[in-house]
Amino acid sequence: MSKPERAAISPTREQDYPEWYQQVVRAAELAENSPVRGCMVIKPWGYALWENMQRELDDMFKATGHKNAYFPLFIPISYLEKEAAHVDGFAKECAVVTHHRLELGENGKLVPAGELDEPLIVRPTSETIIGETFSKWVQSYRDLPLLINQWANVVRWELRTRLFLRTTEFLWQEGHTAHATKEEAIEETLLMLDVYADFAENWMAVPVIKGEKTEGERFPGAVNTYCIEAMMQDRKALQAGTTHFLGQNFSTASNIDFLDEKGERALAWTTSWGVSTRLVGGLVMTHADDDGMVIPPKIAPTHLVILPILRKDSDADAILNYCQEIKKELESKTYHGRRIWVEIDERDIRGGEKMWSWIKKGIPTWIEVGPRDMEAGAVFFGRRDFGPKGRKGLSRQEFIDGFIDTLDDIQGGLLKKAKDFRETHTRIIDSKEAFYEFFTPTNADQSEIHGGFAMAHYSGEPELEALIQSELKVTVRCIPQCENPESGTCIFTGKPSQQRVVFAKSY
Amino acid sequence: MSKPERAAISPTREQDYPEWYQQVVRAAELAENSPVRGCMVIKPWGYALWENMQRELDDMFKATGHKNAYFPLFIPISYLEKEAAHVDGFAKECAVVTHHRLELGENGKLVPAGELDEPLIVRPTSETIIGETFSKWVQSYRDLPLLINQWANVVRWELRTRLFLRTTEFLWQEGHTAHATKEEAIEETLLMLDVYADFAENWMAVPVIKGEKTEGERFPGAVNTYCIEAMMQDRKALQAGTTHFLGQNFSTASNIDFLDEKGERALAWTTSWGVSTRLVGGLVMTHADDDGMVIPPKIAPTHLVILPILRKDSDADAILNYCQEIKKELESKTYHGRRIWVEIDERDIRGGEKMWSWIKKGIPTWIEVGPRDMEAGAVFFGRRDFGPKGRKGLSRQEFIDGFIDTLDDIQGGLLKKAKDFRETHTRIIDSKEAFYEFFTPTNADQSEIHGGFAMAHYSGEPELEALIQSELKVTVRCIPQCENPESGTCIFTGKPSQQRVVFAKSY
Repeated sequence: MSKPERAAISPTREQDYPEWYQQVVRAAELAENSPVRGCMVIKPWGYALWENMQRELDDMFKATGHKNAYFPLFIPISYLEKEAAHVDGFAKECAVVTHHRLELGENGKLVPAGELDEPLIVRPTSETIIGETFSKWVQSYRDLPLLINQWANVVRWELRTRLFLRTTEFLWQEGHTAHATKEEAIEETLLMLDVYADFAENWMAVPVIKGEKTEGERFPGAVNTYCIEAMMQDRKALQAGTTHFLGQNFSTASNIDFLDEKGERALAWTTSWGVSTRLVGGLVMTHADDDGMVIPPKIAPTHLVILPILRKDSDADAILNYCQEIKKELESKTYHGRRIWVEIDERDIRGGEKMWSWIKKGIPTWIEVGPRDMEAGAVFFGRRDFGPKGRKGLSRQEFIDGFIDTLDDIQGGLLKKAKDFRETHTRIIDSKEAFYEFFTPTNADQSEIHGGFAMAHYSGEPELEALIQSELKVTVRCIPQCENPESGTCIFTGKPSQQRVVFAKSY
Repeated sequence: MSKPERAAISPTREQDYPEWYQQVVRAAELAENSPVRGCMVIKPWGYALWENMQRELDDMFKATGHKNAYFPLFIPISYLEKEAAHVDGFAKECAVVTHHRLELGENGKLVPAGELDEPLIVRPTSETIIGETFSKWVQSYRDLPLLINQWANVVRWELRTRLFLRTTEFLWQEGHTAHATKEEAIEETLLMLDVYADFAENWMAVPVIKGEKTEGERFPGAVNTYCIEAMMQDRKALQAGTTHFLGQNFSTASNIDFLDEKGERALAWTTSWGVSTRLVGGLVMTHADDDGMVIPPKIAPTHLVILPILRKDSDADAILNYCQEIKKELESKTYHGRRIWVEIDERDIRGGEKMWSWIKKGIPTWIEVGPRDMEAGAVFFGRRDFGPKGRKGLSRQEFIDGFIDTLDDIQGGLLKKAKDFRETHTRIIDSKEAFYEFFTPTNADQSEIHGGFAMAHYSGEPELEALIQSELKVTVRCIPQCENPESGTCIFTGKPSQQRVVFAKSY
């Protein structure tokens, strides 16, 4: 039952990071490719993780005054056409519904029939269809602010897909709000950015940088786009959530106007914001290691798995009973306002294989319970972050009394480790040469993990950003929020720069 | 602030039941028609109701060993073709995706482009796509039973739609399970029928009859379909949930086979079962009255609304503080394991209008709090089931101490009322003449509410059922489960019948 010579996941991160990611997702039973191009099947363990994330986010949205609603899956083409930038952003990759039934064709196969007068697209995002509804709901300043969220599936016809990170269909939430003033709408946009950052750091243990996107990376139709950016273990950035100040672009397109306090017609100011199942991919790439997934306790589907060691039939009932008692005692507690979930794994497979299956799934903690543990009133306790070599015997009471603190210790440790990693691979860079060197791998086939976040002064020309992107595949991830921005000189142009921005390769 | 002369909803149930339904849904702000044909917008109050129903059902599914997962929105046509009955059932009304982008056409309008090699349909139900996945997940008897549930949106291109009851897109859950034996699969099918009936009666306060469908009403591809049937206030039946024993039809189509304990290949036995947002329509038609919606406390988005009466500015702070204290005290309690939700409605509108807006929304309870109530340490308490005339003064402590019992009393009363209604309109019928009379309105324009559930002996010929349906629009709703079925003689054919079945008009 000792750790195998090689890591449980092959290849390792060093050997082949993209393939390591796929193998972790597979071994942890988070998701798999479906027979439908670019669409994934989210497996029970992965879905339970998403559900926990959903529930916490949903509580946060409600605590900030938002209500959930549901809007149609389909959007008439004419709606998409209402906002020019929006069309450019989404028309190139969307699923188009053109017929409403199937009939038997001449070859005996089913063929589309019943052509629609106006084709529909499957929503890639819902600004246009929700805007149309808001234009009816908003009549007077008394109807504002209107603070709505939707949990839904959306479809973007991506060419190259990767489980969780980029899929044709994905699950997400999209907040849509309307306000009487520009200031309120901007305040909402920044508030939700804070909510996302709070969730990422304090629930997912994923440290993020909050900032604003440059023009080239803005949401199609937005005036400003804000984001949270996290560093993955290959040192690339992952955009983990975005909030958009939409100005009056969509209220103009959908005619969301209202009578203000003076009795005059005014256009509303709107926002939208979203996070998706992509977060699960970010979680994998932040915490997983060469032995598989690592799940932060605060969002874990199961906090503890109990592995009974049933060698002799005569002991089985007593041992299972002992396990049940521990389960019951722990499940009577709560952890940060949520239930504690304990599973007893009675599967009839080898103990080592069983333990490793849970390690690969990222279970935060486990205990093994054999006849001698039971007789001694003890358990053999393991933590995912310490690995199998860190297992130790504990008295049952000691284990139970310390359980919540242990979970918190694991949660805190994961965040700290991720923060340290990000810090290690974040560089203040003050010359173009150092910048190019930082983002260029040195080995022959250029496969090595390199780079990170480069904090550099930059004068903001879109052409320059495009050039850097084409030469290095590096973009400005965000102009970070900071209290005392330090001005300086652009490392590329020598022009003045108001503050350093974050450059990185990204997903 | 007294009750208006006429009812709050116009028309009343007697005057025009279908229109009354639409008006209740509108006045309660549950949902509205969207600009997309047949698709609805579920508004925040309606969605919160659905969320509460979801959460309870989800707990019940998990308590019976099911896990949630997520499968693709799209189904390749070739998958649908695998099961013949299934094709017949769903090909006639489905949304077909044929292209994956839009481009500018010659008229300057967007037109579909990028035609797919194989068109996809938007899932009307997921047996075929989930079956394909199950065929990979199920390899050995150790992988069984496989107990999966999905919360999802589905699309059926209905010609005539009605909010919640029949919409092109709707939200639902679909359970899909695979078992090693026929007996286990049947047991699962009946277990989930019990779960649905338990939920309907004990959470929605909607009494239901459990039974089996006749051949003509079976799910396309099922061996047996079971259902729960409820009586609406126009005495029509609403099928509120179905569970299907699929035999080996879908495991044959998708090749879900496994190595059994003897090491031999065997085909799995599968089931599926679902309830949808249609339940919200059933809730309206069971409990709402001529003053609007009535929501059972156990699934209410808000249990109590507090209406502060702020006549003089000087009192406002003190009164609001008094209201806050009551809110806080009540929200520290739980109600059947769920949080209690209290809302303070500070909107600046007339008191009568405010109270009536909540009555129409179906709030279970409300209190009005004015300066004199506060000074006396009292509240003026109203219950939706008693109406505004039943309001009475209570001491604050008395009100708070009795709150949970009051909610239970309302919940129990709603169930009893619905049961009594069903009993009143259920007839044992022993002749064809009485049967035809029961289902024929007597007034000139045939608009009167009539009929109900007819319990009659019936010998089971599909042709006979089709004849009755064409003549009376009446069908067999189900062959009810009963412990001691009483045999008899078919009232139409005189042939022997094993038990009475439930006939009714239906939604």
